[in-house]
Amino acid sequence: MQPSTYMDRVRGSRPLVHHITNYVTVNDCANITICAGGSPVMADQESDATDIAAVSSCLVINMGTVNERTFASMLAAGKAANENGVPVVFDPVGAGASRYRDRVASTILSEVEVAVIKGNAGEMGVLSGVGGEVRGVDSGSASDPAASAAKLASEYGCVAAVTGQTDHVACGGRSAVLSNGHALLGSVSGTGCMVSSVVGAYTGACGASLESVSAAVTAFNVAAELSAERAGGPGTFKTGLFDALFNLDAGSIDGRSRIAMR
Amino acid sequence: MQPSTYMDRVRGSRPLVHHITNYVTVNDCANITICAGGSPVMADQESDATDIAAVSSCLVINMGTVNERTFASMLAAGKAANENGVPVVFDPVGAGASRYRDRVASTILSEVEVAVIKGNAGEMGVLSGVGGEVRGVDSGSASDPAASAAKLASEYGCVAAVTGQTDHVACGGRSAVLSNGHALLGSVSGTGCMVSSVVGAYTGACGASLESVSAAVTAFNVAAELSAERAGGPGTFKTGLFDALFNLDAGSIDGRSRIAMR
Amino acid sequence: MQPSTYMDRVRGSRPLVHHITNYVTVNDCANITICAGGSPVMADQESDATDIAAVSSCLVINMGTVNERTFASMLAAGKAANENGVPVVFDPVGAGASRYRDRVASTILSEVEVAVIKGNAGEMGVLSGVGGEVRGVDSGSASDPAASAAKLASEYGCVAAVTGQTDHVACGGRSAVLSNGHALLGSVSGTGCMVSSVVGAYTGACGASLESVSAAVTAFNVAAELSAERAGGPGTFKTGLFDALFNLDAGSIDGRSRIAMR
Repeated sequence: MQPSTYMDRVRGSRPLVHHITNYVTVNDCANITICAGGSPVMADQESDATDIAAVSSCLVINMGTVNERTFASMLAAGKAANENGVPVVFDPVGAGASRYRDRVASTILSEVEVAVIKGNAGEMGVLSGVGGEVRGVDSGSASDPAASAAKLASEYGCVAAVTGQTDHVACGGRSAVLSNGHALLGSVSGTGCMVSSVVGAYTGACGASLESVSAAVTAFNVAAELSAERAGGPGTFKTGLFDALFNLDAGSIDGRSRIAMR
Repeated sequence: MQPSTYMDRVRGSRPLVHHITNYVTVNDCANITICAGGSPVMADQESDATDIAAVSSCLVINMGTVNERTFASMLAAGKAANENGVPVVFDPVGAGASRYRDRVASTILSEVEVAVIKGNAGEMGVLSGVGGEVRGVDSGSASDPAASAAKLASEYGCVAAVTGQTDHVACGGRSAVLSNGHALLGSVSGTGCMVSSVVGAYTGACGASLESVSAAVTAFNVAAELSAERAGGPGTFKTGLFDALFNLDAGSIDGRSRIAMR
Repeated sequence: MQPSTYMDRVRGSRPLVHHITNYVTVNDCANITICAGGSPVMADQESDATDIAAVSSCLVINMGTVNERTFASMLAAGKAANENGVPVVFDPVGAGASRYRDRVASTILSEVEVAVIKGNAGEMGVLSGVGGEVRGVDSGSASDPAASAAKLASEYGCVAAVTGQTDHVACGGRSAVLSNGHALLGSVSGTGCMVSSVVGAYTGACGASLESVSAAVTAFNVAAELSAERAGGPGTFKTGLFDALFNLDAGSIDGRSRIAMR
C-alpha cells in the first residue's frame, strides 16, 4: 500500500474531527489534527457535543481525564455519531489503571459502536483480556500486542491498533506490523493521544480500514523520525513534529514507511 | 494612528486580564497575554471568578468549550465586571455550529454589556444576522464581514472585530480595515483565541476603542509576519509568535502596520 | 550537597507523579515531569483520583483553576495519599487572590497532611500570615519570604519552598537559599506549576527533605539558565527548557548550583 494515497485524501477533504478528550494534551490533539490535514473541534457539553458529532467526519473519544459529566457526553455523542454514520475512534487512556477507567471503557465499548480502538500495549492487553500492565497512563509490559489487536478487532468488529515501539493493527482477520517511529516519542506527553487524532482525521476522510489506520500511524511516526533528526530534546522534538507532519511529502512517507501487511 | 502608542501603554501598565475560556487553547492565551504586556489569570468557579473579575483590568469570555457550569460563571463574572467598570471582551467561538452555542452567545450578549466582540467571519456573520457559515470552530464563508462588524457594533454599542485574511473593525459609525497577518495563522489552533487575549490586554490598558482594538490585532498580526519569516511550519511558527510579540518594537509595528481607518 | 545525587535517583526510579492541577498549564506539568525523570498521570474524577493516588509515588495538588468538583477530588485524593504513605506536594496558586481560593487553601492544609508546600512569595506570605500581596496569580510584594517559609514549615511540619528571584526553602528549623534561575521564567505562564511538578518527581523518588526539594528547584532553575543562553524570547525559552532539563548532566547541575544551606 502507498500511505501517501490516504494522506492526500485527508488533505483534499479536510475532515472535521470532533474530540471529546482530556485537558492535558487537547491542544496538541487540535494542532496535530490540523497538521494531518483535518479540522479539529472540541465540545463536551452534552447537547453541544451531540449536535456537533452528528455533522462531523469523525468523533474521537479519549478518556484521559474523563469525569462523570464528560463520560455522559461521550456516550451521548457516540450514539449520535452512530446514528448519523459518523465513525468513532476510541482511545482508552489508562484502562487498567483504576476501577473507574475500566468501567468507563467497558461501558463505552458496550454502548457505542466504535470504528477504531487505539491504545498502548498495556491498555489494549487489559481491554482484550490477553494480559497487560498499566502504570498511570504509561504502558507497562504486555504479553502479546498482536494478539490483543486481533482479539479486540474480532470482538468489536473494528480496526484495533496497539501502539508501541512496534505497532500492531488488526481488522477482519488481517493484520499489519508497523515499524516506524522514534524513541523520543516516549519522552513527550500525549503522543498516543496525537496518534488517535491523526487516526481520526484519516478515518474521517478515508473510512476505517487496516490500510487507512496503518497510513495514519505511519504518517505520524515518519514525521517523528524526521523531527528527531533535528531535535535537541523533547521540547524541540515536539515542536518539530508539527512542522514535519504538516510538510510531509509523498516521497518521504512512502519511501520511509515500514508496513508489513499479513 | 501609531499602534506603538497603545503597545507601550499596555507594557507600561501590565493589565490583569481575567479569562473564562476554553481548555483547548488556554495555555496559549495565558502566554500571549504575557507577551503582549499583560498578566493573565484564569478562574471559572463562580465565586472565584466574580471576585477576580471585579478587580481585573479586563475580562475575556471565550465560549470555545463552554458547559453549563462555566456558562453560569461567564454570566456572573460578566455582571461583576459590568458593576465594577471592568470592560468585557467576548469571543463567540463556534457560534452557528450548534444550537447550544447559539443560545450561549445570545444569552451572554443580552445579559452582559460587552466592550468588544471579536470573532471570525462565519461566527460574526451568524451573530449579526448578515449571514455566514460555520463548520465546527472554523470560519466558513461569510457574505460581508465589514457589514457584520458594523451591525454588531451598532447593535451592542461596542467595538466589533471580524478577523480573517483581512480584519474588519467597527465602532460608533467608524471602521478600520486591517491587512497584516500570515497564512500560517490558519494552520495553528487557537490563533483567534490568542487575538482575543491580546485585545483583552489592550482593552484593559487603553479602554475599548477602534484604535486600541486595531492596534491589538495589528500587533499580533505583525508578530505573525515576523515569526513566519523564520518558521519551518506551524510548530516553529507558533513558538516564534510568542518571541516576536514579546520582542516587538515600535519601529516594526508602526512601520509594518497596514491599518485603513474610515 | 550534590543535587545530581537526587537527580540520578529520580531518573533511576521513574516515580509516578499524580497531579490534580489546573487546565492552563497541565500539559507543561506533564512534560516537565517526564523531562525531570518521572512519569505523570492526571486524574480528577474522585473515585479515579483516589485509586490512582493510592498507588502513585507522589500526589501534586495545584489549585490554579480549582472548582467545587475538583476541590472535593483534591481532598479525597489527598486523604487517600496520606493513608497509603504517598507524599503530597501542595501548590496554593492564587492564594490571597479571592476568598474562594483562601478557603480552598486553608481547607486542604487542615484536612490533608502535606509533605511540601510550594508557592510564590505573595501566596506564601498570605498563607503564613507573615504578609504578602497577590494580584491574580502573580506574586506581588512580600515582606519576608524566608520568614514565610520558616513559619509554614514549622506550622505544618513539612518542607516549605517560597520561589522568586531567590528561592527560600525551610524544613525543621533548617533552611536553604537558592540563587539559580533566569528572568525569562517570569515571562512564561506556568513556570511555578512546573517547579511543583519537578518537586513532585523528586519527592516521589527521594522523599521530602530540605535537600531533595532544593535539588528539584535547582535542577529546574539551572535548566532555565541553560535554555536562556539560546532563547530568542519566551517561546523558544520554554521549548528549550524541556530539552535542557531532559539533557541536564551531573557536571552542569552540580557546577552551576548556588545553594546556601543554613
